[in-house]
Amino acid sequence: MKSFSISMKFELTILGCNSAKPANGRHPTAQVLNIQEELILIDCGEGTQNRMNDFGIKRGRIKYIFISHLHGDHIFGLPGLLTSYSLNTRTEPLTIFAPSGLQEMIEVVLKNSGSILSYPIYFKVTNPEISSKIFENEVFEVYTIPLQHRVPTNGYLFREKERPRNIIPEKIQEYEIPFSQIPAIKKGEDLKLPDGITIPNEELTLSPPPPRSFAFCSDTVYNEAIIPIIDGVDLLYHEATFLHERLQRAIQTKHSTALQAAQIAQKSNAGQLIIGHFSSRYRDVTPFLEEAQSFFEKTHVAEEGKTYQVI
Amino acid sequence: MKSFSISMKFELTILGCNSAKPANGRHPTAQVLNIQEELILIDCGEGTQNRMNDFGIKRGRIKYIFISHLHGDHIFGLPGLLTSYSLNTRTEPLTIFAPSGLQEMIEVVLKNSGSILSYPIYFKVTNPEISSKIFENEVFEVYTIPLQHRVPTNGYLFREKERPRNIIPEKIQEYEIPFSQIPAIKKGEDLKLPDGITIPNEELTLSPPPPRSFAFCSDTVYNEAIIPIIDGVDLLYHEATFLHERLQRAIQTKHSTALQAAQIAQKSNAGQLIIGHFSSRYRDVTPFLEEAQSFFEKTHVAEEGKTYQVI
Repeated sequence: MKSFSISMKFELTILGCNSAKPANGRHPTAQVLNIQEELILIDCGEGTQNRMNDFGIKRGRIKYIFISHLHGDHIFGLPGLLTSYSLNTRTEPLTIFAPSGLQEMIEVVLKNSGSILSYPIYFKVTNPEISSKIFENEVFEVYTIPLQHRVPTNGYLFREKERPRNIIPEKIQEYEIPFSQIPAIKKGEDLKLPDGITIPNEELTLSPPPPRSFAFCSDTVYNEAIIPIIDGVDLLYHEATFLHERLQRAIQTKHSTALQAAQIAQKSNAGQLIIGHFSSRYRDVTPFLEEAQSFFEKTHVAEEGKTYQVI
Repeated sequence: MKSFSISMKFELTILGCNSAKPANGRHPTAQVLNIQEELILIDCGEGTQNRMNDFGIKRGRIKYIFISHLHGDHIFGLPGLLTSYSLNTRTEPLTIFAPSGLQEMIEVVLKNSGSILSYPIYFKVTNPEISSKIFENEVFEVYTIPLQHRVPTNGYLFREKERPRNIIPEKIQEYEIPFSQIPAIKKGEDLKLPDGITIPNEELTLSPPPPRSFAFCSDTVYNEAIIPIIDGVDLLYHEATFLHERLQRAIQTKHSTALQAAQIAQKSNAGQLIIGHFSSRYRDVTPFLEEAQSFFEKTHVAEEGKTYQVI
């Protein structure tokens, strides 16, 4: 059956989980999402290409980059990554989603550094004011999540599409189903036997597991308006720049606390929560975990190089 | 005598020695020069601020940045470094020397990333066509070195100024020289005793060691025109992107080979040579050392994190 297996991966690898600047061995924001072997980069702080080297991410396979906002700690790795692709003679197009302004920045940087890319970039400007579907292919779709930060910012909700039905192995033998017909049956079609009899799909297959979802919410002040958008999300990444004892600082800088991230996770019925984007003032982030878990037990603290399964 | 001691440091720390993109554990070009505790950054590839963290460089003490050319592997660390300074609430001005185009790039990046710096930057545009003195203070002076590369490029020659004379410790006791007069004597003045007698400076001091110099030559094709400019330099950093077996590729991409770097060092009577800017195709750079040393024995292969004394 191996030839029909489709990767069912849906996993997130953290490349950087610090805020603002590199400190305490942590790096600025970047994550790689793998949805059934479609590789997606989310934010791209300085040194993202190094982190990919370190963690064995095949960066050449990334076709889409989603940028939440234009603060440097979320984008300053882009010029290096984009020109390294060119040095590797990439030809496949790259699509970059971001709020307005990124294209101008990248174009001026490339022009003044004398860089001519070997592949096309398609810039797609997001509207951080509303939630809308901005992308879909056969495997997944993406919605924006309006966030409240000091500059125009949106998160992203990645939703897997309905997966193929699971064929029951014994039925292949029983009805001598030819290989060529299996993809159609996995899509839900009935089986027509040579003698004219039709076997209904329900007899041959089992329902696929339900589609999975991941929401990326960084950077943002505590904002309950996002709850209906991400309701029921399987994995939520929500920023937690400060501990709750610094709530005033969080409000002032339009960031969130670990407790607030947990509150959003709980109110949106999330399956799991990852918190990150820690302020450089915290060398040890264990208290973040304790604070968030006091409210939402299924919390993880983002760890660079670690891969989290979306289940 | 400790209160009169002046740091006599003249040393170079390599932060990155790879070309083009990070590979084989090496990083793009960046170096820190310490001339009598004046800290100078030369080129600033992506991740330079991380390398400074790694190697304990006090980046806040850097007042001058010298950029050779605008290829990404020499400048893509600037946006992150400049905004991190601001996050550290730097107020001291920063002066950046570079060929034309850098200011536009940095200003567009800062504008679009919503960054307002806490300190002023003074951009000084170099002319890569001629060698001229572009900077001097009490401690050192800097000259441009025209290089031949695919975009306008210049190296930099850093020359220490004449150092203070060395006072002979026994003379302080013999003539009961007050502390307040020592700086003037170190500058070459005679000593006037209370009884009216004048002791000539030559009796009190020894000549200082000769001024030292460092030349940074990257990126460039083999170019003998630089030899008279750097003649007699104590430490020469010259790029060596390829081994000589790839001479044609070096010529085509306007880079140099290890052998050519050694030839420039030998013909310019350099004291020592450091080669770097290695192509990512080479995992092991030992052959670079062997090739260069076959022609110029006092060659070092650049090693990230290592500090080289200028003597």
